[in-house]
Amino acid sequence: MTETSHDTCTPFPEPAVGEIRLEAVLHALADPVRLRIVSSLAGCADEVNCLAFDVPVAKSTLTHHFRVLREAGVIRQFRRGTSKMNSLRTEDLAARFPGLLDSVVAGHRATGARPT
Amino acid sequence: MTETSHDTCTPFPEPAVGEIRLEAVLHALADPVRLRIVSSLAGCADEVNCLAFDVPVAKSTLTHHFRVLREAGVIRQFRRGTSKMNSLRTEDLAARFPGLLDSVVAGHRATGARPT
Repeated sequence: MTETSHDTCTPFPEPAVGEIRLEAVLHALADPVRLRIVSSLAGCADEVNCLAFDVPVAKSTLTHHFRVLREAGVIRQFRRGTSKMNSLRTEDLAARFPGLLDSVVAGHRATGARPT
Repeated sequence: MTETSHDTCTPFPEPAVGEIRLEAVLHALADPVRLRIVSSLAGCADEVNCLAFDVPVAKSTLTHHFRVLREAGVIRQFRRGTSKMNSLRTEDLAARFPGLLDSVVAGHRATGARPT
């Protein structure tokens, strides 16, 4: 885990690119709520506030899902002021597991975009 | 689940192509033993006998792993005489989730081929 600090943009701990494990990424993605989050983030040019996700689960459950994604290396989370922001680690995942994220997001959009 | 019968080559129940769910495939692949099985099968031109896999787990555990893979739609299992044979559903998965299996197998071979 690496961590850096910045007054207005503090990232939470996350695995370095070379530490991202395939099993952890697949486990993180093997959940309908987390797939929806990842698919939403894949369609955003910028980072997204945690509160912006329209998924029908309790806030504490959503916090858990974001943590699983971050600890697996799928997303980056950081604090900006009082907000917790999220972004996909698109380039890191493409470097570590070429094609994986793209095929998962495309597969989800083609077949799995059902209410959870 | 569809099932057909044949005197010498009886497949076990498996989801039809259109029923294969992304979450189930990702869950099935999110395990080091199952990733090794899939990676081994991806390198075989033909089906492989269950007993041919060199993974350090009990036979009953291996049976469980094969069932998870089959029920998710990742592999096909069938009986040939007294042997249970396995093959990857490569074409079905490529049709349902293009690029997914290739990226997972390549990722496993590049980063995850450790003893389990």
